Amino acid sequence: MQLFWTPASPFTRKVCVAARELGLWEKIEVRPTTWTLDWGYTTPPFTPGLAEANPVARIPTLVTDEGVALGDSTIICLHLNEVAAPRTLIPADKLARQQMWAAYAVADGALEAQIAMRAEMLRPVAVRSERFLEKQRVRIWRCFDALERDVAHLEGPLDLAQITTGIALGYQDWREWLEDFRPGRPRLAAWYAQLAELPSMKATEPKETPTA
Amino acid sequence: MQLFWTPASPFTRKVCVAARELGLWEKIEVRPTTWTLDWGYTTPPFTPGLAEANPVARIPTLVTDEGVALGDSTIICLHLNEVAAPRTLIPADKLARQQMWAAYAVADGALEAQIAMRAEMLRPVAVRSERFLEKQRVRIWRCFDALERDVAHLEGPLDLAQITTGIALGYQDWREWLEDFRPGRPRLAAWYAQLAELPSMKATEPKETPTA
Repeated sequence: MQLFWTPASPFTRKVCVAARELGLWEKIEVRPTTWTLDWGYTTPPFTPGLAEANPVARIPTLVTDEGVALGDSTIICLHLNEVAAPRTLIPADKLARQQMWAAYAVADGALEAQIAMRAEMLRPVAVRSERFLEKQRVRIWRCFDALERDVAHLEGPLDLAQITTGIALGYQDWREWLEDFRPGRPRLAAWYAQLAELPSMKATEPKETPTA
Repeated sequence: MQLFWTPASPFTRKVCVAARELGLWEKIEVRPTTWTLDWGYTTPPFTPGLAEANPVARIPTLVTDEGVALGDSTIICLHLNEVAAPRTLIPADKLARQQMWAAYAVADGALEAQIAMRAEMLRPVAVRSERFLEKQRVRIWRCFDALERDVAHLEGPLDLAQITTGIALGYQDWREWLEDFRPGRPRLAAWYAQLAELPSMKATEPKETPTA
């Protein structure tokens, strides 16, 4: 398999952690991508092969062993989970599975808001919207509050919701323009302190994307 | 089940078409939502119950029979597909399933770009970025070109990729600020003309969201 990748993308990190936890990392060839800093509001020059494989021209994009390009992190995780069976990051129990996907979508919503803020902050100041940034900040806070309340759903064998939550909290820590999530969320903070110690999380800590 | 809904949201339409095609529509209670026109760059007043169920505060949000709120259209479609088994919108064959998810992600990427344009156009002119709009237009064109090239993957029993592609093309037709996708894409145009006649597509044609 081939993975179009950067070390800064939290959606790509989700795939990397899932692949490692499913025992598939050694089967993936990493294809690093570069991005100009105006990617948020222009069509940047794409790393060769990326837009040809996935016309959305976004990372992560995984090209499967069958040569099919999957251009969405949720869909990639579903695929890896199938490939790795019987190893799995999706609970077999019906209610546990629903709760996992519910928490996953909340964490993913926080990730989307974080990336929307990143793209907004890369805009020229003249067309940057403070109100838009504030909308995303408030959304992230609502998501983290819900994860604090339902932190019990993040217990048990490692799953995609735990991975995605850990990555959202890690991104919050990484970007200096995002506030510390810990005040008022002691259970989530304690939970994250443990999760962040997983070798798969340690090995994928975010780094700035090389610019083209 | 309960579905937080508006008739303008293409992601919500995806869930509505899937539910109809899976024979589940009668089991869903529709909860209409309203949105102020500044939703793209502010935290609008939410329809009661929405943010409490799903802190991302977005539609579609489906509350399952088990009382779990799923706040992402892909995850909702996976859930409906499980509930409806053995009826399915996901191919059983491994390669066909990969190709379905690949096309689904391309169509979904076009949908995201369309909604990003909608949100941008609702911004005050002073902070509207023409370059951002152009980036999304070009992305949509790349996605539609790929769907034209691989239109053979949209044949066979109805699936989530066909539904999502049909909805992206329908949205392109609906918004007067989006260009006609048909010139240069004769196979996709012919394919869409047929798909749009499905009763599930006819019953869910987009309409403006009531404003709060």
